[in-house]
Amino acid sequence: MAGIFDINIDCGESFGNWVMGADEALMPHITTANVACGFHAGDPMTMMKTIALAKENGVAVGSHPGLPDLMGFGRRVMAITPDELYAYVIYQTGALKSALEANGMALHHVKPHGALYRMLNGDEALGEAFARAVIDLCPEPMMYYPAPVERHAVTKIAADMGIDVVGELYFDLPYDDDGTLVLKRSNEGADLDDTRHKLGLFLETGNTLSIDGARVPISARSICLHGDGPNAVDLATTIGATLSEHGYTLEPLTPAPTLHQAAE
Amino acid sequence: MAGIFDINIDCGESFGNWVMGADEALMPHITTANVACGFHAGDPMTMMKTIALAKENGVAVGSHPGLPDLMGFGRRVMAITPDELYAYVIYQTGALKSALEANGMALHHVKPHGALYRMLNGDEALGEAFARAVIDLCPEPMMYYPAPVERHAVTKIAADMGIDVVGELYFDLPYDDDGTLVLKRSNEGADLDDTRHKLGLFLETGNTLSIDGARVPISARSICLHGDGPNAVDLATTIGATLSEHGYTLEPLTPAPTLHQAAE
Amino acid sequence: MAGIFDINIDCGESFGNWVMGADEALMPHITTANVACGFHAGDPMTMMKTIALAKENGVAVGSHPGLPDLMGFGRRVMAITPDELYAYVIYQTGALKSALEANGMALHHVKPHGALYRMLNGDEALGEAFARAVIDLCPEPMMYYPAPVERHAVTKIAADMGIDVVGELYFDLPYDDDGTLVLKRSNEGADLDDTRHKLGLFLETGNTLSIDGARVPISARSICLHGDGPNAVDLATTIGATLSEHGYTLEPLTPAPTLHQAAE
Amino acid sequence: MAGIFDINIDCGESFGNWVMGADEALMPHITTANVACGFHAGDPMTMMKTIALAKENGVAVGSHPGLPDLMGFGRRVMAITPDELYAYVIYQTGALKSALEANGMALHHVKPHGALYRMLNGDEALGEAFARAVIDLCPEPMMYYPAPVERHAVTKIAADMGIDVVGELYFDLPYDDDGTLVLKRSNEGADLDDTRHKLGLFLETGNTLSIDGARVPISARSICLHGDGPNAVDLATTIGATLSEHGYTLEPLTPAPTLHQAAE
Repeated sequence: MAGIFDINIDCGESFGNWVMGADEALMPHITTANVACGFHAGDPMTMMKTIALAKENGVAVGSHPGLPDLMGFGRRVMAITPDELYAYVIYQTGALKSALEANGMALHHVKPHGALYRMLNGDEALGEAFARAVIDLCPEPMMYYPAPVERHAVTKIAADMGIDVVGELYFDLPYDDDGTLVLKRSNEGADLDDTRHKLGLFLETGNTLSIDGARVPISARSICLHGDGPNAVDLATTIGATLSEHGYTLEPLTPAPTLHQAAE
Repeated sequence: MAGIFDINIDCGESFGNWVMGADEALMPHITTANVACGFHAGDPMTMMKTIALAKENGVAVGSHPGLPDLMGFGRRVMAITPDELYAYVIYQTGALKSALEANGMALHHVKPHGALYRMLNGDEALGEAFARAVIDLCPEPMMYYPAPVERHAVTKIAADMGIDVVGELYFDLPYDDDGTLVLKRSNEGADLDDTRHKLGLFLETGNTLSIDGARVPISARSICLHGDGPNAVDLATTIGATLSEHGYTLEPLTPAPTLHQAAE
Repeated sequence: MAGIFDINIDCGESFGNWVMGADEALMPHITTANVACGFHAGDPMTMMKTIALAKENGVAVGSHPGLPDLMGFGRRVMAITPDELYAYVIYQTGALKSALEANGMALHHVKPHGALYRMLNGDEALGEAFARAVIDLCPEPMMYYPAPVERHAVTKIAADMGIDVVGELYFDLPYDDDGTLVLKRSNEGADLDDTRHKLGLFLETGNTLSIDGARVPISARSICLHGDGPNAVDLATTIGATLSEHGYTLEPLTPAPTLHQAAE
Repeated sequence: MAGIFDINIDCGESFGNWVMGADEALMPHITTANVACGFHAGDPMTMMKTIALAKENGVAVGSHPGLPDLMGFGRRVMAITPDELYAYVIYQTGALKSALEANGMALHHVKPHGALYRMLNGDEALGEAFARAVIDLCPEPMMYYPAPVERHAVTKIAADMGIDVVGELYFDLPYDDDGTLVLKRSNEGADLDDTRHKLGLFLETGNTLSIDGARVPISARSICLHGDGPNAVDLATTIGATLSEHGYTLEPLTPAPTLHQAAE
């Protein structure tokens, strides 16, 4: 038995009458969901429906807070202060947390969205504010972040503060040779054979392949895929099958138990 | 000793750079605050500042959710469904609840704002949805509502469901002869001598006076005053002093302990 | 030659990253577009793209203003005053009008959206405010409205004030026996043979058929179809072909010239 | 006769029930108003009231568009594209322009607000998009901008494109020795004697004084003052009286006639 592994998606990103993503089709194939909570997407009704869908499928739910920019889908950098960032993460995640509790579920983790994520990569004051919000919100503080996590401001600070930082591996976005995830606006999906090959390599050697074919060492406990990809469901089932073939069980992650307590 | 009595205000109704209400001046004179949580007023930063102010002054905090209508300050009736109402109350109050918990405080109660309050007066399906949200949110379900509370759809349903419904008495809004609170857009404040007289009468006889001078029996455990009144601080201190003179201690209310458990 | 006839759609109802409707596929098959302008849908970038698309296809553009309710897509009745309605129609249509003028185009007409349309059916004060806005906005005041137009508050007032009120005929929504359009949330499209038959009947006799097969006399100069229908493009081409077969030319309408001047 | 001079304020920055600025008190003392139009402040009702107030007082009206950030009052830099900037300026100003035309008035100029203004200082692509919007909106293209105007990206581009760029002089914000306006969040007003002295100096020599007392040459045809200052009305009357004493007539500016035509 190789242990447990996790597949997560960003979801609940519809708004009112506007639909986005293939949440319903993907939920049976994943273990953890990052649910939008109102600022970049995800009105309260969408949030409620997404939680019900996750519950039905035994999927753990974390929050996916963003910048207050509906028009720009939270993808435009905004000059907000650390205090504002803290308040925005508490507000959005708090809304989700009570919705989860009303459904007998607990908040699993926090994962920043879009430009908020990019702003956290390099700014220590914002990173500290974000980590503080995670600790103030989660019963067992956990955050998800694109791997490699050790090189960013927020992830280093979060780990120092006792948060379990879960690195995510991507197959529908390319890595460059030094292991940086290359962000793209349009999601072209991922080749399924290529994914099977790269995931196998990762499980056996701890490396993924860069866009140029170089081996890139990466540490990850979850795989994130984008629900707006053209073959997102096939990608999810391919990843699930490959994990099973390598002896992994698909299950939501449990926060590493000693982390936060040890830090206190 | 005549027991405890409570003074509450609607507050945290600023938004971004726009200031509303005399929150800072009033906080030392009240025991409970109904804090706006984003839909009709109260952005996340305002919410945080208002909670800090309440904490400093030993004031208990409930939520004051409204309709999603910033432009109309939540005062315009909107045709929303019971499911939407439930989701909106969970969302707004959940955001506040986590902000309270981050400050070591607990959610005290829920009180509907503006047009949402008026819509709840007569609609049973909305009333049931609201009461369900209160139960799903509050550790000890409590809601505040203008007295007389026994005549409204939502308050009857809420009481039946085991929620402690706290009736509020007003001095800066008039009652008509059958005890209906007369809503007015502009707050002209309240005459202080008149308030002292009417509050004394209430404490001794359980009656207030209508706009025409008739005695109106009313059952209330809290006094609500509006922070935008021209003499709000003087009104608060007058009420506080009158309560003291009659032997009451000013303290946040504790939910009647047997109610919700009995209903379960 | 039987004269000109017009096909219109509601469009530009995307918002930021969320896409709605088949605007691009439909534009070549229509003559007039009702473009959302920000309150219920249609951010400024969407508005600009929709105008460019209309220009490319020789389509005339009117505004499609709605209630300030993005979360509810403008489909929830709100208690707004006539002054608010006037200001909201001027604001939204004014934004569109300048965008049109920047593209060398002129504002063609105004058509109310969703709950705003339903509110105008029966309320004279709102109807008067709406008509006044149309006159203040359009070089040649014209409004579109579901036929039969003679029975509604706003259309009677508008016609009295000299506005050219264009009745619209629908094929993807049913009529009941007294000629009332039956509103439905989900658009199931329209049977193409049935549409060909009913449109032929209308062009020859001035009657459409109710949901129960009764002949309903109706006066219309434009056909409106919904871009979110499952066969919207086929419906548009079927309507266009049927109009041609009956000798009509597809062209945007010109406002009846004497109307507004006569009223002044 | 020394000619005409102009005093302008940013106004119409209330939103719904929230009031900001002393618009009513200041209008009789100014000649030109920059009216907020919905994105950072200024809902449609506020816009209508502000226009009515300006009309009553013979004040010319320009638009004061901002970033789509109500929560931050348009004061937080956002990474928007030139196309987005163009669309946002057209949208907001277009809304205002139709409201002006409904009142028999014409759009006078455009002046960017807050972070949008700061973003335009140094970015040529944004500057070009802004200037293009001004030309597409104004019958006689004119923009207002803090002097000295010749050093910024947007003002150089705008002047090259034939826009009449009006430099503004400030007395309630300090200049540093190289003539840069020092932005401050809190407005402490301006000393009246000091203002009288500095304005006299400017009218006689074309210089103002820096915060350290150095003479700073500046070219300006309008004076801007902030309506939220503690002595804004006194400041306005002091400036008006000083201008009169020096022989100037207070009147809205007329765009330099040859500029735009010459450029075409």
